[in-house]
Amino acid sequence: MKIAVDAMGGDHAPKEVVLGAMKAVKENPSIQVTLYGDQEAIKAHLTNGQNIEIIHTNEKILSTDEPVRAVRRKKSASMVLMAQAVKDGQAQACVSAGNTGALMAAGLFVVGRISGIERPALSPTLPTMDGKGFVMLDLGANSDAKPEHLLQYALMGSIYAEKVRGIPNPTVGLLNIGTEEGKGNELTKASFQLLKDSQLNFIGNVESRDLLDGAADVVVTDGFTGNMVLKTLEGTAQAIFGMLKETFSSSFKSKLAAGLVQNDLRALKSKMDYTEYGGAALFGLNAPVIKAHGSSNEHAIYNAIKQANSMAEENVGQLISAAINSK
Amino acid sequence: MKIAVDAMGGDHAPKEVVLGAMKAVKENPSIQVTLYGDQEAIKAHLTNGQNIEIIHTNEKILSTDEPVRAVRRKKSASMVLMAQAVKDGQAQACVSAGNTGALMAAGLFVVGRISGIERPALSPTLPTMDGKGFVMLDLGANSDAKPEHLLQYALMGSIYAEKVRGIPNPTVGLLNIGTEEGKGNELTKASFQLLKDSQLNFIGNVESRDLLDGAADVVVTDGFTGNMVLKTLEGTAQAIFGMLKETFSSSFKSKLAAGLVQNDLRALKSKMDYTEYGGAALFGLNAPVIKAHGSSNEHAIYNAIKQANSMAEENVGQLISAAINSK
Repeated sequence: MKIAVDAMGGDHAPKEVVLGAMKAVKENPSIQVTLYGDQEAIKAHLTNGQNIEIIHTNEKILSTDEPVRAVRRKKSASMVLMAQAVKDGQAQACVSAGNTGALMAAGLFVVGRISGIERPALSPTLPTMDGKGFVMLDLGANSDAKPEHLLQYALMGSIYAEKVRGIPNPTVGLLNIGTEEGKGNELTKASFQLLKDSQLNFIGNVESRDLLDGAADVVVTDGFTGNMVLKTLEGTAQAIFGMLKETFSSSFKSKLAAGLVQNDLRALKSKMDYTEYGGAALFGLNAPVIKAHGSSNEHAIYNAIKQANSMAEENVGQLISAAINSK
Repeated sequence: MKIAVDAMGGDHAPKEVVLGAMKAVKENPSIQVTLYGDQEAIKAHLTNGQNIEIIHTNEKILSTDEPVRAVRRKKSASMVLMAQAVKDGQAQACVSAGNTGALMAAGLFVVGRISGIERPALSPTLPTMDGKGFVMLDLGANSDAKPEHLLQYALMGSIYAEKVRGIPNPTVGLLNIGTEEGKGNELTKASFQLLKDSQLNFIGNVESRDLLDGAADVVVTDGFTGNMVLKTLEGTAQAIFGMLKETFSSSFKSKLAAGLVQNDLRALKSKMDYTEYGGAALFGLNAPVIKAHGSSNEHAIYNAIKQANSMAEENVGQLISAAINSK
């Protein structure tokens, strides 16, 4: 598989992107990577160019750029060229750790939507306590959603969970503020009925407080709620770990304690690290588009490239298209 | 002030409710409490009956009861009699740790809405890292909301923050998935404009990940999102503290560490305990109705009674009514 990678996206680009690409092609020689970006800057970190090609460009999209405008105007930005390569069939999937909004715009306007999919969805795999993880969508590609969109999200998430994550007959949960049928707002009430009547393995409503315990393999929600819940999870974890750090450095006694459990605490924190599961996939596009976290290091980029490769190998896009259009 | 209290509501009723009531009247002799519930069960814990009256009833609403039906049918349930006492002017405010939905129904159907308020809102004071706390509403009284409702929530929350919490000119934030104007879904975009054009001290959008850092004194959102965020906060904190507990009991070394920081960790956990700020107030009703947490102990009930008393003393309801109807 040929994977197009935006070498200039992310807080640690191009260094960590280049390192991650080298790791990916080394571990899986069937992967070929094309890096888009500043040739000199890329070459400074590229110690092994096997199965890696560079397409040079000076232009790039900044994290501060207005997404849609940036994609339309910066036609030779590394991210846009990467998306164009997928569109033109020069690559089968693409990966960027850059501006999320711009990547969604590039996905929509350059790579293009699967016919029949009304709204693409942004879908990371999030951690669970048991390390299994779950797929949640939409996490913010579209703020407002209709019940039919949630049904499409459920279908796309199920195909991904089965084909890429290897979960047979994955369970689908509807994120809601109560588990009983009839709970929630107008959107969740109507979506519940659609999901119940579908062929999917729908297990009913799931609550946000049960997500980390692995409430379902695929959790669907509108982009506003999904984004809100993700940020609340992150914010709360960060606040508590911050307070813990403070607690552990407040006295000699507590520093001593910190020394004793330091490795355990690090392990605990890494359990919450969802870059371990790859980046967030943009579902519903003509080819896999992966958004790696902005702070991605070598390992996170490596995981995202692996994920893009699996999605292309398993024909996730074609399966989604077939499922949507067979209705 | 006379405060009506549902002695049979909550996981630890009537014991902790009776203890909390005794504490409240002892600390503040201007408070008179009427306890509604099983006289024998109440008397078993009532070691000092000064300023405490008992109105006996055998009926009570269970946590498993369907809220609206229970309020309509169980006309002599302790919670319903409590609400009726407020309605009839025999008490100025009421407190229950029972079935949340039933208390909202009793508030709406028995105590009644302030004229001009379209939707009452459920509003707890939530913790912040600095211990100051903030008022958030709606946390689930109404799942769906319109922009005008969010404006009313902001107004009610501001009056409460100023009069009861003593914060002059409280800041108001709109819970959203980005801080910039123009972010969010249709509801938040329209609400932003209304809030911006109001006389309130509106500071713009706030993100859920900044809530624990004290993003604003009053945070407004629709009931679905508010309930979702609250449960995510609780669920994440619980999951992390659960993992910490496991970590600290996994080996001799970690148990030793736990002993060294046990008090600090307990202090940290209690920072997250929002019963410290009282119960959740139901705003927009003709008299203060306070929902104490279902697991309330003596101290939480005491705080909730104090809060009900302050709201009545400060005429929060009348101020809300005047503000709504002066428009």
